[in-house]
Amino acid sequence: MTTNKLRIAFVGLGSMGLGMAKNLLAKGHAVIGVDMNPDAGAALRASGGQTAASPRAAAAQADALVLVVVNAAQVEQVLFGAEGAVGALPQGRVVMQCATVPPGFSTALGERLAAAGHPLLDAPLSGGRARADTGELTVMSSGTPQAYAQAEAILDAVAAKVYRLGDAPGIGSLVKTVNQLLAGVHIAAAAEAMALGTKAGADPRALYEVISNSAGNSWMFTNRVPHMLDGDFTPLSAVDIFVKDLGLVLDTGREVKQPLPLAAAAHQMFLMATAAGWGKMDDAAVVKIYEQMGAFSVAERAGKRA
Amino acid sequence: MTTNKLRIAFVGLGSMGLGMAKNLLAKGHAVIGVDMNPDAGAALRASGGQTAASPRAAAAQADALVLVVVNAAQVEQVLFGAEGAVGALPQGRVVMQCATVPPGFSTALGERLAAAGHPLLDAPLSGGRARADTGELTVMSSGTPQAYAQAEAILDAVAAKVYRLGDAPGIGSLVKTVNQLLAGVHIAAAAEAMALGTKAGADPRALYEVISNSAGNSWMFTNRVPHMLDGDFTPLSAVDIFVKDLGLVLDTGREVKQPLPLAAAAHQMFLMATAAGWGKMDDAAVVKIYEQMGAFSVAERAGKRA
Repeated sequence: MTTNKLRIAFVGLGSMGLGMAKNLLAKGHAVIGVDMNPDAGAALRASGGQTAASPRAAAAQADALVLVVVNAAQVEQVLFGAEGAVGALPQGRVVMQCATVPPGFSTALGERLAAAGHPLLDAPLSGGRARADTGELTVMSSGTPQAYAQAEAILDAVAAKVYRLGDAPGIGSLVKTVNQLLAGVHIAAAAEAMALGTKAGADPRALYEVISNSAGNSWMFTNRVPHMLDGDFTPLSAVDIFVKDLGLVLDTGREVKQPLPLAAAAHQMFLMATAAGWGKMDDAAVVKIYEQMGAFSVAERAGKRA
Repeated sequence: MTTNKLRIAFVGLGSMGLGMAKNLLAKGHAVIGVDMNPDAGAALRASGGQTAASPRAAAAQADALVLVVVNAAQVEQVLFGAEGAVGALPQGRVVMQCATVPPGFSTALGERLAAAGHPLLDAPLSGGRARADTGELTVMSSGTPQAYAQAEAILDAVAAKVYRLGDAPGIGSLVKTVNQLLAGVHIAAAAEAMALGTKAGADPRALYEVISNSAGNSWMFTNRVPHMLDGDFTPLSAVDIFVKDLGLVLDTGREVKQPLPLAAAAHQMFLMATAAGWGKMDDAAVVKIYEQMGAFSVAERAGKRA
């Protein structure tokens, strides 16, 4: 715990970033936000934050820079692009990077930022928008003691649980990558299981009740199958997130020469779903590929769709 | 609940059957056991049970016949083989069949037994040896009210939870089959995830700690990864069980024309493990295939193997 009030440059006010920024404001920190979406900036200002036109402008005089963007390309742009923060952020100040990125990218980023005079906290998040809003995220992190010391007040404000996985940037991203391997495989497997059971004549709701109390259960099965039963694919996390994250998983496997046949099969299912035009839907919409292949509907059998 | 004391013919005194039979004895029922392994019969007699030389001999004058054998071929043999129980079991008495078998086999078996004058309770089990020993199994069952009424005292003695999934034999086996799809995929995915993380440089025990508290968790991940970390493949459930059960899953998908790419990939991993000579090891030994492919050892990195 710390009573330091920081001036925080915060890039990426999306579904998770905005909630995090609000929790930082609530703890008395100053937040200077940057997002391409003007509504996100307006929402931050309405909560007492400030906004800036570019990462460079936000980073000037900041005590810390937090990135909650989508992927490695955006991280690159925010830090080293034309209006990038590096160069403007005062020497010695921490960069806390929260996007899910390739572990190797994080390792290299740590070296590049060290050369520019900044410690990197490799800090991918888990918990989704709901936990971001309540300040109860899980952080899978790695970095030097110096990076942690500078980020401590930020972690206090946004996270319920911080896993400290080592001194080297990259391990935090690796553990998040492994988590996404399992999350993606489990969502696709949940869809596959519900498809087989329903097609072969089981009542989908009874199937859900039994499996979610049996050895076949997973966190994702319990959480996502209700979306399938209701045919409600309002995006909480989208199909395209898993197209990206399982892609990252497979890239990592390729890099270290580790074959990943289940992740590869699951990635193909999410690719099929985005190819079918369902990329922006909730990731549970991967079940629609199984339904299409099998010519039936889980939700219809569950009594939800006409 | 019932105070009826039954005379129960019980075929299959293996890792689950013996515990179940002992719980039946403890409730005051008479149990006449049959198993090819003389040690199993001796263990039953030591607990106050009787044994018979054949299913036919055990079934004569029995109130119910319970089968806890390995697969459909054994069920066929026990019921309809040369020394089979059908014909000897008194008319009208229930057959409770607990093996994991193809759902279509169970459906057909229900019709064949009905023609022979016996109701069938389709009653696959979940919970493993530990729950069998404590009388706390989960039963995924279907059958007529008549079948349930006759099996009630048996279910009371062996199960903590009985899912009643319908009147028709086959649905119980189908739900168990779907559970096995997920269980098998989740074990292989757990191995794949531990392999990727370890190969890429994460500490395997830290990885286990983080994932088992995150959205990537599954019942199987929590339960089986400790075997991988310890390199201890003492069989609780064997690789060959999943070679069989995922085979059943794929047969069922073929029968109803539902493609199952994740189950197919997982099945290949278990086939590789049995091809490598590890079929009798604990199912968590599927990780050894990933280790072999990746030329490393999870347990060694976890500090367990030299």
